[in-house]
Amino acid sequence: MRSDCPLNYGLEIFGDKWTLLIIRDLMFFGKRYYNEFLSSNEGISTTVLADRLALLEKQKIIKKQKDPEHKQKIVYSLTQKGIDLLPIIINIGMWSSTYSKKVSDKMECYFADIRKNFEKGIAALKAELSATHLE
Amino acid sequence: MRSDCPLNYGLEIFGDKWTLLIIRDLMFFGKRYYNEFLSSNEGISTTVLADRLALLEKQKIIKKQKDPEHKQKIVYSLTQKGIDLLPIIINIGMWSSTYSKKVSDKMECYFADIRKNFEKGIAALKAELSATHLE
Repeated sequence: MRSDCPLNYGLEIFGDKWTLLIIRDLMFFGKRYYNEFLSSNEGISTTVLADRLALLEKQKIIKKQKDPEHKQKIVYSLTQKGIDLLPIIINIGMWSSTYSKKVSDKMECYFADIRKNFEKGIAALKAELSATHLE
Repeated sequence: MRSDCPLNYGLEIFGDKWTLLIIRDLMFFGKRYYNEFLSSNEGISTTVLADRLALLEKQKIIKKQKDPEHKQKIVYSLTQKGIDLLPIIINIGMWSSTYSKKVSDKMECYFADIRKNFEKGIAALKAELSATHLE
């Protein structure tokens, strides 16, 4: 750790251009498998993906298990610590939609609902994620 | 841009271990000068600092001006776009305080107030920043 600043703690873990995109894939796109993360639009490399998945697992933000339906496959899911990254991710999205016309044209309808009642919107999304990812 | 995902827009700008620490210095520590950013605990190098300041200025997140009191010095301030990063930074801090005992021991008193009423806490902090940074 470079310092014990609360912002630094977070940035040491996910302060790069890739880590939160993997969390996004788990949260919003229903992706659960290595090859699904690999196929995302941003073109993450297999080296970076493997590195970030290992980091996220070590930090207990995601967990990996054998897929109950295909024992040779690994399935990833979010922990509570991972689900709790939701307000950070939504806030980055809302800020982007405010300041990028391209993002806004595509996504502002979605964010407009959350802006109206942030607490309620986050609670609803967290409940959905908990039902899908936590045992 | 790797994609037009709203999260990606933000991460392309500040998705690294350093950029948001400079914003933090401007927001919470009253730092306004190059040498003040350079002296922060995390030990940013002068190369990285100069690079990130240029990026933040290009993205209109900060602006630089000649210091009215010392014409040969440059003083940095946040724009509205920069001030609007506040909820992201506070959410990273709150998450860190939830999951790191070291952060929590030092900072949870501060975050406890904001957790009680997030909207109100953010509005108050934004008002302070606007008064200090915006003409």
